[in-house]
Amino acid sequence: MRVAVYPGSFDPITCGHMDIIRRSSKIFDKLVVAVLNNPSKNSMFDFAERKKMIEEAISDLDNVEVDAFNGLLIDYVSQKKYDVIVKGLRAISDFESELQMASMNRKLNSKIETLFMMTATEYSFLSSSLVKEVFGFGGNIESLVPKNVIGNMIEKFTEV
Amino acid sequence: MRVAVYPGSFDPITCGHMDIIRRSSKIFDKLVVAVLNNPSKNSMFDFAERKKMIEEAISDLDNVEVDAFNGLLIDYVSQKKYDVIVKGLRAISDFESELQMASMNRKLNSKIETLFMMTATEYSFLSSSLVKEVFGFGGNIESLVPKNVIGNMIEKFTEV
Amino acid sequence: MRVAVYPGSFDPITCGHMDIIRRSSKIFDKLVVAVLNNPSKNSMFDFAERKKMIEEAISDLDNVEVDAFNGLLIDYVSQKKYDVIVKGLRAISDFESELQMASMNRKLNSKIETLFMMTATEYSFLSSSLVKEVFGFGGNIESLVPKNVIGNMIEKFTEV
Amino acid sequence: MRVAVYPGSFDPITCGHMDIIRRSSKIFDKLVVAVLNNPSKNSMFDFAERKKMIEEAISDLDNVEVDAFNGLLIDYVSQKKYDVIVKGLRAISDFESELQMASMNRKLNSKIETLFMMTATEYSFLSSSLVKEVFGFGGNIESLVPKNVIGNMIEKFTEV
Amino acid sequence: MRVAVYPGSFDPITCGHMDIIRRSSKIFDKLVVAVLNNPSKNSMFDFAERKKMIEEAISDLDNVEVDAFNGLLIDYVSQKKYDVIVKGLRAISDFESELQMASMNRKLNSKIETLFMMTATEYSFLSSSLVKEVFGFGGNIESLVPKNVIGNMIEKFTEV
Amino acid sequence: MRVAVYPGSFDPITCGHMDIIRRSSKIFDKLVVAVLNNPSKNSMFDFAERKKMIEEAISDLDNVEVDAFNGLLIDYVSQKKYDVIVKGLRAISDFESELQMASMNRKLNSKIETLFMMTATEYSFLSSSLVKEVFGFGGNIESLVPKNVIGNMIEKFTEV
Repeated sequence: MRVAVYPGSFDPITCGHMDIIRRSSKIFDKLVVAVLNNPSKNSMFDFAERKKMIEEAISDLDNVEVDAFNGLLIDYVSQKKYDVIVKGLRAISDFESELQMASMNRKLNSKIETLFMMTATEYSFLSSSLVKEVFGFGGNIESLVPKNVIGNMIEKFTEV
Repeated sequence: MRVAVYPGSFDPITCGHMDIIRRSSKIFDKLVVAVLNNPSKNSMFDFAERKKMIEEAISDLDNVEVDAFNGLLIDYVSQKKYDVIVKGLRAISDFESELQMASMNRKLNSKIETLFMMTATEYSFLSSSLVKEVFGFGGNIESLVPKNVIGNMIEKFTEV
Repeated sequence: MRVAVYPGSFDPITCGHMDIIRRSSKIFDKLVVAVLNNPSKNSMFDFAERKKMIEEAISDLDNVEVDAFNGLLIDYVSQKKYDVIVKGLRAISDFESELQMASMNRKLNSKIETLFMMTATEYSFLSSSLVKEVFGFGGNIESLVPKNVIGNMIEKFTEV
Repeated sequence: MRVAVYPGSFDPITCGHMDIIRRSSKIFDKLVVAVLNNPSKNSMFDFAERKKMIEEAISDLDNVEVDAFNGLLIDYVSQKKYDVIVKGLRAISDFESELQMASMNRKLNSKIETLFMMTATEYSFLSSSLVKEVFGFGGNIESLVPKNVIGNMIEKFTEV
Repeated sequence: MRVAVYPGSFDPITCGHMDIIRRSSKIFDKLVVAVLNNPSKNSMFDFAERKKMIEEAISDLDNVEVDAFNGLLIDYVSQKKYDVIVKGLRAISDFESELQMASMNRKLNSKIETLFMMTATEYSFLSSSLVKEVFGFGGNIESLVPKNVIGNMIEKFTEV
Repeated sequence: MRVAVYPGSFDPITCGHMDIIRRSSKIFDKLVVAVLNNPSKNSMFDFAERKKMIEEAISDLDNVEVDAFNGLLIDYVSQKKYDVIVKGLRAISDFESELQMASMNRKLNSKIETLFMMTATEYSFLSSSLVKEVFGFGGNIESLVPKNVIGNMIEKFTEV
């Protein structure tokens, strides 16, 4: 059985993330969406909220589950004995930083491979921070995030 | 009558901005230089100062005026019923972020188009933050900003 | 009245070209699609065929017309006294070559400006040569070219 | 069982190709190296020679086999009912053309995914044409191609 | 005698920096490693620590020395009457920012040239901040920094 | 004494080449402009013509001379015991191919270094082939090539 890991901050999960999750879940036996739980990094949603939003968004996908990690991704993946890391590539700037990260990870542990998928062109401009910026200015994010996320965004902006 | 909007922070306006303003003012019937008035973002010059510096710099251009906006650019442009957004492209990194922004804006409002001009090669390295960095270290900025901006820079650095 | 020129080989016209034509025809008073008639360059369709395919594809657009040029684009545009050149940008590689071309054109004639539009993301991968390659291998090009072009492609491949 | 296809011209196979083959053969149950057999394209080695050189180079890899295709890759992969396409990414220029190709392939057949691996940094500069150029000028290619290819290169250059 | 300056923050010095230092020290009569002493910028190691780590790492190189500067690099270089600036290029993103910086420096002082070397491919992913990130998460940095730096890293992380 | 080599086809030499030649001749004791004499490659000017045009253009530069090479640049440079190769970088596309070439050359002979200079921004769009294209279409190339080249261009186009 081959298990792939899709790591990220998911603050919050977007339709671009969902595109990679759906497509890669068909290629591997199991896909683990691994949420980076980094207490020192400012996130809009806390770890539990981010995890819950993903779980709701992937509820129709049988072989996908959500997990958390902190520290080095490569350590997490090798401890769990997962097989590969999956990343989405949207643009040149992604390419360069991902190339750096993949080269670094191979230097730290040459057994774990990173596979890349091109994000669907209709989401190539999309990022979690863009979603927050647009929403913060009152823009419509219905086509940018999974349905269940919108309620969470409204709540979060109201409480702040 | 076709009205184009040239948005930015202009903190302060540079010769690169002026290049785009002069050239695009000849293409459209009216050009509105729209200063982003974002209270939560740290700027060296406050909104009134940035606006005044632009007004002085464009005083010889009849069909150019200065305005302000906050919130989403696309909302501002559609409320004002302006026709197009004009942006300058200096380099690959500009290209990628502008492509993202333009794609996003088209998703939010497909009626408003963004047109790009290549910044003149002699200003392709220039940005407001570079101007501030060079000036802060005592460098000569005479060829980098409109004449009237230099006095404002000296004043600002003296008061701090 | 402002007239824009959209130059190219259009061998054949694609949905990506049509996207730029439709969008820019709304921004300018008149749009001239200028077909490069370069006898020394191998094209699948001859000049008359390329021109006819464009005319059919734009028949619902009142302010668009088709013209031809040979020699330097900048000379053609200045002789015709047109106002601006419009180009589509699909990717980084486009950006670099277009930046070169625009810089060159400004050096040859600084009065004529080039404006760029980002091609819609769903056509960012599309080019005339890709259409010919896919079709030549028996692939389906229905979503890649205007309807009227398909018949021309079939005819051309049959005659060869 | 998941079968991946690694397509290319392999004229001739290089150490960069071998890097992708070895690494991806560990991720999938079976890897098919698919040689493009395009009679209209000039290649140094004919199809049989290219195939034989790959077979010798992969003889120690149990789950890798060599096959041929012509026409559209996406048609070949779907007829064979293979699961994914694997490609190596060396540089930005690769990224752009592969992004185009992957977008095109998804438009033609959305069920077949393309996965990318970053080529090991020590081979990021390597291509079949560079090998031929260096060898043609009398350079040493021992660290650039699998051992068995060198004899073939010498033979080919002698016969010409 | 030709003196080259290799400027940077070196917080801490990495194997990528050492690669550029070793290679450029063979090209010029003297190489000055110039540490930017910018009190307003947060660094992990203070200026004295950064300088000491470099001095230990270059102890076998006769024509290399360490110096400090603050303010504009171009002013420092011209006051010292040094001949050229040397920089390493790792990737496209480096290229763009270095092109900006070099263009700016030539505008400020056209007499001082900047020469670039491509970082060895095995270090093309490496940066001081990546070293700190990996080390902070408990990763192994032995192949990333000069030997003498490891003790300093341990000390620094223990004291914090 | 340090000798640098500036290699190229120079078909014909442009103002962009002259910019690199002038600037690098001040950094090294001697600069050799090395013309690639590749009989199998189509050039507009034959080797003797290209060499003569360069010699005329550099006649005021005491420490610059013209030479020829064929085969691998790295072999030529090491046979002549020259110290470094100098190349100009105009754009991202240059950067990628030069990075490949420099990596390859270091693999073939790790002792010979390549140093890069950023082409002056006013020539960042310029290439020999652009010069030929513009001239062929009747454009003005006075600001693109050294004065002495213009006569040669006219002659060449008349004889054809």
